[in-house]
Amino acid sequence: MSIKNAFYAQSGGVTSVINASACGVIETCRQNSDRIGNVFAGRNGIVGALTEALVDTSLESDADIAALKKTPSGAFGSCRFKMKSLEQNKREYERLIAVFKAHNIGYFFYNGGGDSADTCYKVSQLSEKMGYPVQAIHIPKTVDNDLPITDNSPGFGSVAKYIAVSALEASFDVNSMAKTSTKVFVLEVMGRNAGWIAAAGGLIEDYNVPVLLLLPEIDFDQNKFLAALKNKVETHGYCTVVVSEGAHYSDGTFLAEQGTRDSFGHAQLGGAAPVVANMIKEAHGYKFHWAVADYLQRAARHLASASDVEQAYALGKVGVELALEGKNAIMPTIKRLSDKPYRWEIGSANLADVANVEKMMPLDFISVDGFGITDKCRDYLYPLIQGESYPDYDDRGMPKYVVMKNILVPKKLEDFVI
Amino acid sequence: MSIKNAFYAQSGGVTSVINASACGVIETCRQNSDRIGNVFAGRNGIVGALTEALVDTSLESDADIAALKKTPSGAFGSCRFKMKSLEQNKREYERLIAVFKAHNIGYFFYNGGGDSADTCYKVSQLSEKMGYPVQAIHIPKTVDNDLPITDNSPGFGSVAKYIAVSALEASFDVNSMAKTSTKVFVLEVMGRNAGWIAAAGGLIEDYNVPVLLLLPEIDFDQNKFLAALKNKVETHGYCTVVVSEGAHYSDGTFLAEQGTRDSFGHAQLGGAAPVVANMIKEAHGYKFHWAVADYLQRAARHLASASDVEQAYALGKVGVELALEGKNAIMPTIKRLSDKPYRWEIGSANLADVANVEKMMPLDFISVDGFGITDKCRDYLYPLIQGESYPDYDDRGMPKYVVMKNILVPKKLEDFVI
Repeated sequence: MSIKNAFYAQSGGVTSVINASACGVIETCRQNSDRIGNVFAGRNGIVGALTEALVDTSLESDADIAALKKTPSGAFGSCRFKMKSLEQNKREYERLIAVFKAHNIGYFFYNGGGDSADTCYKVSQLSEKMGYPVQAIHIPKTVDNDLPITDNSPGFGSVAKYIAVSALEASFDVNSMAKTSTKVFVLEVMGRNAGWIAAAGGLIEDYNVPVLLLLPEIDFDQNKFLAALKNKVETHGYCTVVVSEGAHYSDGTFLAEQGTRDSFGHAQLGGAAPVVANMIKEAHGYKFHWAVADYLQRAARHLASASDVEQAYALGKVGVELALEGKNAIMPTIKRLSDKPYRWEIGSANLADVANVEKMMPLDFISVDGFGITDKCRDYLYPLIQGESYPDYDDRGMPKYVVMKNILVPKKLEDFVI
Repeated sequence: MSIKNAFYAQSGGVTSVINASACGVIETCRQNSDRIGNVFAGRNGIVGALTEALVDTSLESDADIAALKKTPSGAFGSCRFKMKSLEQNKREYERLIAVFKAHNIGYFFYNGGGDSADTCYKVSQLSEKMGYPVQAIHIPKTVDNDLPITDNSPGFGSVAKYIAVSALEASFDVNSMAKTSTKVFVLEVMGRNAGWIAAAGGLIEDYNVPVLLLLPEIDFDQNKFLAALKNKVETHGYCTVVVSEGAHYSDGTFLAEQGTRDSFGHAQLGGAAPVVANMIKEAHGYKFHWAVADYLQRAARHLASASDVEQAYALGKVGVELALEGKNAIMPTIKRLSDKPYRWEIGSANLADVANVEKMMPLDFISVDGFGITDKCRDYLYPLIQGESYPDYDDRGMPKYVVMKNILVPKKLEDFVI
């Protein structure tokens, strides 16, 4: 019982590179098998820890673990589940400790965004507050890029690349057709509170593509938008609009919540893109097309950014190394050393400073009219989409994505109802 | 005036590989400069011929023309414009002849789908009916894959690859989250009349992904669909739905035309995906996500199929060779020689047999329950998505797509109003 085992879990919305972090964690643990025992992965995130559904990763081959680096999604399953505070739900923390004890777990690697940083921080306090020694390390991950302190978060760079390239390709398409057909293309992207992803769409201006961004940071002003759009179409013959799902009016109402109803009068959950497209049609009569990228954007491992994949792996690896150095309540971070050429190194942040802090896009990243990005933003974004890290493909033309065996270790405890 | 010039135009919705055909046409003409003079490209398709807006492609460098092979969209502009019959609109045909005469054009290469084949066929008759000697060759192109005689049409293979890969990636994502969050993902794809593109989504069943297709070939039966969906979710924990934009009820009403209205009572143009998603939510309460790929799918040069790019180029090249052999009113085609390994050669079809014939998906490509594809369909589809043909990327991480100079030759005629 002297060598402790590790627990690893994926949390929240998955990304195209979160498995690269898993790969970094597991490979580094395997390389240090004299100091860390088995890695148990939570089946469906932290829920797996509470229900004692622990994947025995020692049963996964080295080749399959290596293939995680090129496979999108959460290979062990993720979850949306935020633990309450120790005071509010002591029962869950006692259960965690029971599971950790039963399986000799001394390392807790939690791979997620803001909510997970908070959970990870709470687990890091178990040692002090409940006398169970565990080192909790948070591995950052979020397509929203809203974690503080770290220069960027794994998952974002690849989404940014996907959106920039896709918006460019679709804009070329619209430009081809605009003379007699579609003049406006509206692309809806993720980003409920922060406009980081939509900002990536602004990069296509560097290709002389007329583009307007609708960011959650800027209250939507319909008249101003429609005037700006008309100007773009009259100047360039067409226009692309990239709208965040979180774009909203000054009263906080989302564009996507326009109270649309079906023929039976039922409220329809719609997207922001069709709302914007219809608004343009009504005001100017332009023929439009719209797309909603949704999960396609965050799952698009086929177009991952090489720097994103590399960082996702490195953060997993360094997370384990920090644990081996005896650290607790910490998150490895990306520190940017220079934009051109892009140089970065791994730093670290205290989880107390990370938990529940949301990093918004700086206002000097947004152009004066509110519909574009500044050069400062461009300098920030380009390094994150640098390089292409392609998956391998089989002879039939499909990517070779790995599926874990996900065999659970035998349970030692009673069932637990969440 | 002994060597005739060529006219080349792109028609209808563009694709990620139509420029590869343009590359094949222009490079092959350049290689035969002793027999074909300049290539004039129609600015915005056939509209460019009628308005005498002719791009002087001799001003584009060899490198830029070569780069067309890796650039999506229609580099010279396309259009949606179908010429009426000679009897109905003699004025337009007389204008075409005037432009051809003024610029010594003897070859007409028209790159498009079904409607364009019809226009091309009409132009091929000018020689016989109006005494102007012109050889008209149709280069097939359509993401809808609905041209007859040819085994497949350039543009389709790359869309099929994009949809298969994207649906797979998003399904992996949903599978990760399904325990506590999203259980159903609905992806809307192109295909107004034929379900070829949606069928490509069916390939992900080979990865044990639960998927249901809603094809235009099969009348939508809501109860049957909802039952099949429930079964998939209860068996696998989640389900992916790929719905054609042309999916419809037995009375012909499109799923996308559900009479949704905004808060002012205005009719909303929506997509099929949100309609299906909401239907599922109401019936079963499953948490869902939906995406509408729209132009992203047909513009996605970043994930083009290598066999598609190769065929697009070859058809352009052979189109010119057929013209040099003295052929008229013809379309080069893809003839499949074997599935495994995939072997093909170029054949040809008479335009009289191509014009206005729409190739639907054979019924034996669709599974008995109507929600999937058969092995026969799989054997047909896989070769078309074989191989990855990536664009080049710059140091910043963006694709190097070429933009033509598109300099027009001086006009020699009076203006013409279409």
